[in-house]
Amino acid sequence: MTSTFAIAIVGATGSVGESLLQILEDRGFPVGDLHLLASNESAGRTLPYKGRNLRVRAVEGFDFKAVQLAFFAADQSVTLAHADAVRKAGCSLIDLSGALSAEQAPRVVPEVNAAILEGRTAPLALTSPSSVAVAVTLVLAALRDQVQVDRLVINAALAVSSRGREGVSELARQTAELLNGRSFEPRLFDRQMAFNVLAQVDEPDADGHGLLERRINQDIKALLDNASLNVAVSCHQVPVFFGDSLSVTVQASTPVEVNQVIAALDAASGIELVEAGDYPTVIGDAVGQDEIYVGRVRRGLDDPCELTLWIVSDNVRKGAALNAVQLGELLIKHYL
Amino acid sequence: MTSTFAIAIVGATGSVGESLLQILEDRGFPVGDLHLLASNESAGRTLPYKGRNLRVRAVEGFDFKAVQLAFFAADQSVTLAHADAVRKAGCSLIDLSGALSAEQAPRVVPEVNAAILEGRTAPLALTSPSSVAVAVTLVLAALRDQVQVDRLVINAALAVSSRGREGVSELARQTAELLNGRSFEPRLFDRQMAFNVLAQVDEPDADGHGLLERRINQDIKALLDNASLNVAVSCHQVPVFFGDSLSVTVQASTPVEVNQVIAALDAASGIELVEAGDYPTVIGDAVGQDEIYVGRVRRGLDDPCELTLWIVSDNVRKGAALNAVQLGELLIKHYL
Ligand SMILES: NC(=O)c1ccc[n+]([C@@H]2O[C@H](COP(=O)([O-])OP(=O)(O)OC[C@H]3O[C@@H](n4cnc5c(N)ncnc54)[C@H](OP(=O)(O)O)[C@@H]3O)[C@@H](O)[C@H]2O)c1
Ligand SMILES: NC(=O)c1ccc[n+]([C@@H]2O[C@H](COP(=O)([O-])OP(=O)(O)OC[C@H]3O[C@@H](n4cnc5c(N)ncnc54)[C@H](OP(=O)(O)O)[C@@H]3O)[C@@H](O)[C@H]2O)c1
Repeated sequence: MTSTFAIAIVGATGSVGESLLQILEDRGFPVGDLHLLASNESAGRTLPYKGRNLRVRAVEGFDFKAVQLAFFAADQSVTLAHADAVRKAGCSLIDLSGALSAEQAPRVVPEVNAAILEGRTAPLALTSPSSVAVAVTLVLAALRDQVQVDRLVINAALAVSSRGREGVSELARQTAELLNGRSFEPRLFDRQMAFNVLAQVDEPDADGHGLLERRINQDIKALLDNASLNVAVSCHQVPVFFGDSLSVTVQASTPVEVNQVIAALDAASGIELVEAGDYPTVIGDAVGQDEIYVGRVRRGLDDPCELTLWIVSDNVRKGAALNAVQLGELLIKHYL
Repeated sequence: MTSTFAIAIVGATGSVGESLLQILEDRGFPVGDLHLLASNESAGRTLPYKGRNLRVRAVEGFDFKAVQLAFFAADQSVTLAHADAVRKAGCSLIDLSGALSAEQAPRVVPEVNAAILEGRTAPLALTSPSSVAVAVTLVLAALRDQVQVDRLVINAALAVSSRGREGVSELARQTAELLNGRSFEPRLFDRQMAFNVLAQVDEPDADGHGLLERRINQDIKALLDNASLNVAVSCHQVPVFFGDSLSVTVQASTPVEVNQVIAALDAASGIELVEAGDYPTVIGDAVGQDEIYVGRVRRGLDDPCELTLWIVSDNVRKGAALNAVQLGELLIKHYL
């Protein structure tokens, strides 16, 4: 057994990659050799880690035999292009893109369903679920004894950082142009993003559902191990830089006891409950934090079995990089 | 029978008041004497109407005997302070604040429930419902023959103009301060509004529901004449200047036929259906328009009886001023 682990981060130069690097350092992950990988374009750049500057290399041609664990924080196509080579190299993989099927790489949030890994052996491939599914299942897992969920309606107002670095710079550019009274051609987004809400975050399929909406639906049912759950998901893009803002309406099989829900959320680790009357927002609460924030816990106006919650979380942190690092911690503790 | 009508607009200097004045002119409403009223502070200002500049007077001390119809587009307290005097003066009233009970002033959207006025006689008091209820009921009324609604979950992303003129100037101020790297103390909103989503738009009650959320719930049940409907409403404040962006998930009593829904929405007047794949937004579609825009019509991923829709509308126009003027047209045609 080695006391440190050789690690690769694919997509190290992106938002999630940068956050991964920071969180590995902050949590004292036992990193041995560290390989920062990206596209050919970024090869040669350097990124700081523990006071040193590490050189970024192209993932193209990288030999995954050199590492025991690889984080994939690039597009789905990048995961798909390399997943086979990773497996053949005997390397474990944690994917953040959602490219792999549930059979190839089960979705795991440690606080919710770590138990499904029992009995498995390395090399393992895991998926860190969509950030919305991470936040929603963390909350529902904390309420397991209080609320038997039949149906969920999730409205997710997603920050532009869910589209990576480019989303952030494009919102800033559009906003500045508008405030200066200049017109512009939208980039990345298919229309004006500043001071507007977009009804979808990716191209919908023939039935009208977006890829991310389907992914969130499947992730939640898998994480809660409840295939018969009804999950409606609507993802919207809002002119916010960082953080997911989620409005979740739950239909339970029995009347909801709000006091019990509040007590359970108060006691849950990884969740900050904001007191009644007040409410959390991405700015000022969630962004930069490991916890997800919950507020506005209320019972339905017309139905005592209905529960509505407001959840905000840092999409890049707990929604992606932190959960992935926690998966890494689980792997090195039990499986590597 | 007179061929013109003496009209008062209380709150003429506000967003809704200004829009009322414009729409009365645009639609050729048979306006005789026109009294523009506001608080003492605005008395003496002038506002343009049909090329003339009309002087604004204080509503305090105004004798409503001088008019046949008064629009109230100020705070609830202003409606409450004057409603009795209006009634005693034999003047009809159209309230936009929602201050009066359903018994005192029924909620009416002409396309949805004008029939409830049959048999009544002037003077009448009517309420133009909350802008969210106007948009949602217009759509559901168009689907009456296709979708038998059991339950609604409404997520309303409201523009800052729902907080009147001050909301608009405060978002502009905060955005400019942030882009210039300056810190600021929030005004009007209880925290940073720029690049943020607020979980509520007014102070929630002991059960956690906001006043507007309750009002939308009641308005919808009244307009659709369906007291047994389950309506969950969440109102959020987004950094958008104008327009409501609504995500509505309907649970129907039978499987939804999307093609029939699309055909019915396509045929409905006052509704613009945007084709599948594309979607409407407040900027570029709804703002400044009389129609409300619908897109992203889709059936549930897990439940064929579920229907989700995206609706955008101009909160100040069809959501308030236009509907009020249409109510005025109904009154002068049948009741005044
Ligand atoms: N942002 C979020 O909220 C969030 C949350 C959960 C999951 N995710 C997922 O995490 C992944 C990364 O997202 P992000 O927000 O960090 O995006 P991002 O800021 O745009 O970064 C993308 C990263 O992928 C790299 N890359 C692009 N093409 C590549 C190629 N052909 N080969 C190798 N690397 C390539 C980029 O490297 P270059 O510098 O060379 O271009 C960059 O490091 C995505 O799959 C996303 O869906 C994101
Ligand atoms: N904005 C929307 O999206 C929307 C939609 C539906 C319904 N409504 C309702 O419509 C009403 C007006 O909203 P708004 O957006 O137009 O607000 P606004 O822009 O803030 O305008 C408020 C108006 O009320 C007047 N007012 C304030 N205090 C008064 C007093 N004591 N006596 C007489 N007039 C007084 C103001 O006159 P001064 O110039 O003298 O201050 C101004 O004309 C509100 O009840 C609102 O809830 C608004």
